Amino acid sequence: MTFIDVLFGRPLATSDERAEHIGVAAGIPIFGLDALTSAAYGPEAAMTLLIPLGIAGVTHIVPVITAILILLVIVFFSYRQTIEAYPGGGGSYTVATENLGEKAGLLAAAALMIDYILTAAVGISAGVTALTSAVPSLNHHTLSICLVILTILAIVNLRGVKDTGAAFILPTFFFVGTLLAVIGVGAYRVYITGGHPVPVVTPPPPAIATVKYLSLWLLLKTFSSGCAAMTGVEAVSNGVMAFEEPRTKKAQRTLSIIVATLIVLLYGIAWLSKAYGVTAMEPDAHNYQSVLSILTTAVFGRGWFYYLTMGSVLMALSLSANTAFADFPRLTRAISMHDYLPHVFTLRGRRLLYSHGVYALTGFTALILIVFGGVTDRLIPLYAIGAFLAFTLSQAGMVVHWLKMEEHPGRMWHMFVNGFGAVATGITLLVVLVAKFHDGAWLTALLVPTLIGIMMVVKRHYTRVKREMEDMTPLNLTNMQEPLVIIPMARWDRISEKALRFGLLLSKELKVVHVHSDDEPVGLEEEWEEKILTPIRKEHLAEPELVTIPSNYRFIVNPLMDYILELEEANPGRKVTVLLPELVVRHWWENALHNQRVQLLKLLLLLKGNQRIVVVNIPWYL
Amino acid sequence: MTFIDVLFGRPLATSDERAEHIGVAAGIPIFGLDALTSAAYGPEAAMTLLIPLGIAGVTHIVPVITAILILLVIVFFSYRQTIEAYPGGGGSYTVATENLGEKAGLLAAAALMIDYILTAAVGISAGVTALTSAVPSLNHHTLSICLVILTILAIVNLRGVKDTGAAFILPTFFFVGTLLAVIGVGAYRVYITGGHPVPVVTPPPPAIATVKYLSLWLLLKTFSSGCAAMTGVEAVSNGVMAFEEPRTKKAQRTLSIIVATLIVLLYGIAWLSKAYGVTAMEPDAHNYQSVLSILTTAVFGRGWFYYLTMGSVLMALSLSANTAFADFPRLTRAISMHDYLPHVFTLRGRRLLYSHGVYALTGFTALILIVFGGVTDRLIPLYAIGAFLAFTLSQAGMVVHWLKMEEHPGRMWHMFVNGFGAVATGITLLVVLVAKFHDGAWLTALLVPTLIGIMMVVKRHYTRVKREMEDMTPLNLTNMQEPLVIIPMARWDRISEKALRFGLLLSKELKVVHVHSDDEPVGLEEEWEEKILTPIRKEHLAEPELVTIPSNYRFIVNPLMDYILELEEANPGRKVTVLLPELVVRHWWENALHNQRVQLLKLLLLLKGNQRIVVVNIPWYL
Repeated sequence: MTFIDVLFGRPLATSDERAEHIGVAAGIPIFGLDALTSAAYGPEAAMTLLIPLGIAGVTHIVPVITAILILLVIVFFSYRQTIEAYPGGGGSYTVATENLGEKAGLLAAAALMIDYILTAAVGISAGVTALTSAVPSLNHHTLSICLVILTILAIVNLRGVKDTGAAFILPTFFFVGTLLAVIGVGAYRVYITGGHPVPVVTPPPPAIATVKYLSLWLLLKTFSSGCAAMTGVEAVSNGVMAFEEPRTKKAQRTLSIIVATLIVLLYGIAWLSKAYGVTAMEPDAHNYQSVLSILTTAVFGRGWFYYLTMGSVLMALSLSANTAFADFPRLTRAISMHDYLPHVFTLRGRRLLYSHGVYALTGFTALILIVFGGVTDRLIPLYAIGAFLAFTLSQAGMVVHWLKMEEHPGRMWHMFVNGFGAVATGITLLVVLVAKFHDGAWLTALLVPTLIGIMMVVKRHYTRVKREMEDMTPLNLTNMQEPLVIIPMARWDRISEKALRFGLLLSKELKVVHVHSDDEPVGLEEEWEEKILTPIRKEHLAEPELVTIPSNYRFIVNPLMDYILELEEANPGRKVTVLLPELVVRHWWENALHNQRVQLLKLLLLLKGNQRIVVVNIPWYL
Repeated sequence: MTFIDVLFGRPLATSDERAEHIGVAAGIPIFGLDALTSAAYGPEAAMTLLIPLGIAGVTHIVPVITAILILLVIVFFSYRQTIEAYPGGGGSYTVATENLGEKAGLLAAAALMIDYILTAAVGISAGVTALTSAVPSLNHHTLSICLVILTILAIVNLRGVKDTGAAFILPTFFFVGTLLAVIGVGAYRVYITGGHPVPVVTPPPPAIATVKYLSLWLLLKTFSSGCAAMTGVEAVSNGVMAFEEPRTKKAQRTLSIIVATLIVLLYGIAWLSKAYGVTAMEPDAHNYQSVLSILTTAVFGRGWFYYLTMGSVLMALSLSANTAFADFPRLTRAISMHDYLPHVFTLRGRRLLYSHGVYALTGFTALILIVFGGVTDRLIPLYAIGAFLAFTLSQAGMVVHWLKMEEHPGRMWHMFVNGFGAVATGITLLVVLVAKFHDGAWLTALLVPTLIGIMMVVKRHYTRVKREMEDMTPLNLTNMQEPLVIIPMARWDRISEKALRFGLLLSKELKVVHVHSDDEPVGLEEEWEEKILTPIRKEHLAEPELVTIPSNYRFIVNPLMDYILELEEANPGRKVTVLLPELVVRHWWENALHNQRVQLLKLLLLLKGNQRIVVVNIPWYL
């Protein structure tokens, strides 16, 4: 058992695949953590925009969250149907491609890839920011801690989906459990006090109102900010293939449980905030507390349970990046199957998952964390854009899907729901884009077309290669002429002998080329007769020809290249085979002691060569 | 005419060599600048140590310089004889090797290489330091200016020795001319005033004496510091080959002119300092002026001639690095001819010089300048060590040389002179080593054995390769069996077809190896009969064998390698030829779109392979 085996697990045989499939219990942490942790920042994102309304703001939060929940339910039904219609996974990308065409599919693909990379970066850095604000002495190490967590996530995920699920079940259930306890106990208090609960610790007073009425634009912004609570809902639909049979049912059940839990959490938090009169605080206030922190303090006070709850939230937040790790490789694999991304994304690593997707995600996430120094607050609006673009395309795709299913009972109702969803998520997308364009949404608006461009170039390349390489005809055995063999030779030694022996086997037409620089006193001619021609004549083999090229300017490689290319041109239809004797040294540094002309010649032959030139390496091991 | 041609000059044919040879006029700037500029800092180095004696110090400077000049004359005669005895160049290295053995030669080689690299670094940075102290606003750019000058020197030198000489004649004659004018006019003033000249500007007063008597140790230190004035005298002896015929005479004449000029400059400066009562100033004094600056001011005042003189000194100092560029490549070539350095140092570039020596010198000098930030004051003692080690070995070598020349008239006298020189330079070496050990001489004491160690390892490698590769016997044609040919094949396409066609030409024993991963739905078997075997049978060729290797863990390269190595082991005495079909893409980035298994296989075959495995690249150009 090697170190690699301990770290990443033993290799799994392809036939072990079935054992790697997961059930609902593992599915929730793997695909649900991103969605569930939205409860920790979604309601607060909406409430922050209501701060200018002062205490009046609390009256608006429940209706806003309710509207979001209606949209969430629509999106939920849409993805439930997607899972059933596309059990091969791929989510929005597949739905958009199948129903709206390749272009829409690419748009969804780009949106989702950006979404997942940002999910990973934002998740990790949100968790670490929460940690460093609790323990300020760690402030200087933000980036390092982010990268350590990223590495751990990558390693855990490279161990395979089963191990990942097992690792994250506990933090997920702690997160959900503590929040449900806060909501449950809070609701009970509200009930027994007839709607007027007495907080254990009084929440900070609301800000003084600066705005009297909720304008439409503010309402829209509040709504779209709160929609951050919906991100992550698409995750299950991308990963259907990870579930055990009956695959579709298990995936749907997982999604249902995730969304139901999310609804309870979101509604609970909104409703309890109103009941306890909790408003959001300006994030840069010196005594800033999150809404969850204020609520938990109001219900339970600052006891051990408060710290348990806050700890669970922090833990779950940094692990929410894991959803990206679960889905990104599956997404890139699906895109790569359509030739839009390098084919390595379809290869399965030692633990049966698409390891190159994990590498790519880790690399890009690390890049973003490093560029932004681990402080990714500004990226939050960007990643909502990716998610909502995917939502909209997926819903629109489902509308077309239902259009085609003429036989399906109730398809008009389905179409109406998905159509409404598409319009609602589309409007949200627009509002986020406009509201946050200056703050960074322009970056996403720039990245999406770039990514699409790259994918199209990749596709074009693969199509060309396929067209050129495909061979439907049987082996063609006409024109099987022996090749012209060229052996560059500087002097007569063992390796030249080895090359010559190989050349004599290969062809009857051998040209030994000696480039003679004015610098050298003697050429090959002296030894040619005695050491080479005599034994060959004795065996009645075909005589090789010695070609001596004078070099006035001491160049060796160029005259050789010229000779090879000339010979090739003078013999159209003939194959030209160049035998290159190559010294293989024992230590890398020994290469510095030998001229690298053979390497240069190899490179030039590859660059300037063509179909008719073949290079044979004759290695000589020291 | 390309950009390269404009920058470095057109390539010179080997037959143009004669035209590239230089005469005395070009030889002086090329090989003499280092020696001549020693006048700018040698006397001052000695006088600085006399500061504690106050005004009494001026009485000691003339005797000390006279002693140095006697040593210089001895060294001069020694090198004059070296030039005659070894017209092939190589100086101390050659003399030591021929007379004292390889070990002593290596010691001289290491000393000289370090000396030249430090000469280049110290020369450039001394000039730049003088410039930045005149124009303090350039202070932040010291390193950049150093590197720019280094680059210019490298380019000029790469244009060949003739162009270099032409470029540096003017600065050299300006430097010598202005200093001679100062000395001449000063001497005239002393003469007409009967030994009591009135300075135009009175020199700064001498420091208050803190020491009464000149102790032996202080005298030795003063003497050895002043010996910095002798560095550079060995330069001509290394570069004899650069001169036109009669080579020896021209080189000797160049050396004579250089040394004679140097003697006049050194004695003149010392004598004039005494006459004008000039003492050195502490280098870190706020009103610091160099001895040359004080002298020039005393003789000419602060007029335009003062600035012309100082400008010439500055210019010549920074160009003195050029001597290193002239000699280092010749030295490394001589060492490399004895197999102690990589053979590239013997190759002549487009302008007939040993370009790799120029590259190496430029690289190491840049490294030193960067490490020390362009401030190389501390390196001055280090490089005197290299020079004096070379002097001592060269003189000692000449003693042995005369010992062997039993017939030579006056050899006893020669032996005595060289023996005396060896002892004197040896003592100086010891004094410098002890006095400056703490200041950095330990670094040289450490570098010299390291370099010797490297050279010995290089020699060992070349000796082994030579022994292994040398083939004095004629071509051996026994056991000319056809190789076993292995073709890895993933699927049937055009490139597989090309490989197979080549393989059929090569041998009757062909094994097509298909590694079948459980992931793939179908193998090669389906197409094998129809597309491959049928046409081959029709032509009555030898049938290849299809070997399908199942891969449960989706590995491709490892099972292939195992198969190749097993086959090779099972067939002792047979050559095994592996045909590797390789896709050649048009743009480098397209490589990312294709798996690099062929490259990996090639690398593994090179690393794990042996004499009997030959790799054939079958390129397919897209």
